[in-house]
Amino acid sequence: VFAYERPVGFEDVDAAGIVFFSRFFGYCHEAMEAMLAPLDGGYARLIVTRKLGLPAVHVEADFRSPLRFGDVVRIETTVERLGTSSVALRFDLARGADAIATIRHVVVLTNLETMRSAPLPDDVRAVLARHAATT
Amino acid sequence: VFAYERPVGFEDVDAAGIVFFSRFFGYCHEAMEAMLAPLDGGYARLIVTRKLGLPAVHVEADFRSPLRFGDVVRIETTVERLGTSSVALRFDLARGADAIATIRHVVVLTNLETMRSAPLPDDVRAVLARHAATT
Amino acid sequence: VFAYERPVGFEDVDAAGIVFFSRFFGYCHEAMEAMLAPLDGGYARLIVTRKLGLPAVHVEADFRSPLRFGDVVRIETTVERLGTSSVALRFDLARGADAIATIRHVVVLTNLETMRSAPLPDDVRAVLARHAATT
Amino acid sequence: VFAYERPVGFEDVDAAGIVFFSRFFGYCHEAMEAMLAPLDGGYARLIVTRKLGLPAVHVEADFRSPLRFGDVVRIETTVERLGTSSVALRFDLARGADAIATIRHVVVLTNLETMRSAPLPDDVRAVLARHAATT
Repeated sequence: VFAYERPVGFEDVDAAGIVFFSRFFGYCHEAMEAMLAPLDGGYARLIVTRKLGLPAVHVEADFRSPLRFGDVVRIETTVERLGTSSVALRFDLARGADAIATIRHVVVLTNLETMRSAPLPDDVRAVLARHAATT
Repeated sequence: VFAYERPVGFEDVDAAGIVFFSRFFGYCHEAMEAMLAPLDGGYARLIVTRKLGLPAVHVEADFRSPLRFGDVVRIETTVERLGTSSVALRFDLARGADAIATIRHVVVLTNLETMRSAPLPDDVRAVLARHAATT
Repeated sequence: VFAYERPVGFEDVDAAGIVFFSRFFGYCHEAMEAMLAPLDGGYARLIVTRKLGLPAVHVEADFRSPLRFGDVVRIETTVERLGTSSVALRFDLARGADAIATIRHVVVLTNLETMRSAPLPDDVRAVLARHAATT
Repeated sequence: VFAYERPVGFEDVDAAGIVFFSRFFGYCHEAMEAMLAPLDGGYARLIVTRKLGLPAVHVEADFRSPLRFGDVVRIETTVERLGTSSVALRFDLARGADAIATIRHVVVLTNLETMRSAPLPDDVRAVLARHAATT
């Protein structure tokens, strides 16, 4: 499990006064980027220099409680499945002891020039394996 | 089925050069707002004056093909289930003949002052019923 | 003068309940894109195919009145100055009869591959000239 | 001078491949929030509990060099003028030794319930005074 915390952004709320639901996916993406920071050059070098990305092909989310400005959200990321090209990630979002949401992303290692899937490079696989769910 | 079209926004792409996946949910929310435009004062009056909203409690998405700046996305919205308070919406996103994504939102009619669920008001139910899936 | 209207987006407000000030610049950018729609392929083809852009080098804004969800903003765009590479645009934002903001962007025609300025292509210049301030 | 650093967000770029210019203002707003963190409860409590905000009434920006994903931007914030209700802030943005932008915001202490200006509370004034320009 990889833990990441971030405050709700001032501009992340919607006209209902709560964090707009799509922002949760951006928060989870940040958690994934932070988890991949041990890569040489981090996630940014993967994207910019190596031209490899991890776009989502499937997303599921259960929202239990809203977030508001002033809240700090803690995201625990677990690698639920590590395939040849695809990775299933679970993000458990909480504010203190309150469960906020459970979000799952399936992402696929993709060559950004051809937009085709490719096997996970060894260094990416190794970082992800550190956070694999233990059963 | 309710059809809504919008061009990809200039700032909707990410550093991988494709529309950031969380933006798809915002596009679907726009489609829902457009579907609810026949309400007196539209969705905005529901939120601002009546203090009722439709926050998502569950989201699922399958992404088949990326969107890029210059694309126009067509979203067909179907009301798959119309409960007492909750509504299951399916959004089929396409670019011309290409399927882009299938996204489902379960939203719950919520009193924004108490953040408790409430039965769908008759006018909201009536608008949604026009777009109910026929089986 | 080129007129463009758009409703405030549900997710454009901030935790103070008003449209976050940075969104105004995005609205103005949309107005510029709409003004350039007569280009063959529109602004999108300029960016994507011709690899030419109009990044801002200078921005000024005076905000007079806030926008809220439910408002529709009307943006009148005037080309105040049309240089060799640079263009000075003024955007007058209003909600009905209420002045909301006056915003100025100076943008420079830029080759997106070299990030160097270049003379405005004739077709871009011609479209902009239609909306030049008359003195 | 108050220093704040943040990486460019994955979704902050536009279809030209550089950070969308409006995002710079959000970055500066974050710097202001960080500067105000010493307030009891921080900027969030000012907004949420005390119902006081600091909306911008005037903005000026000179953009010198683009930011890209992978960059870390350093923002030095200076309080250039501290009035009864209004505050002039200057933000100098840099990436390493490269000047990126100089941005000025004039913000006004505003009662968010009445949307009227009010004198800066003593605690807010005291925090801002620590970062006043010395001449």
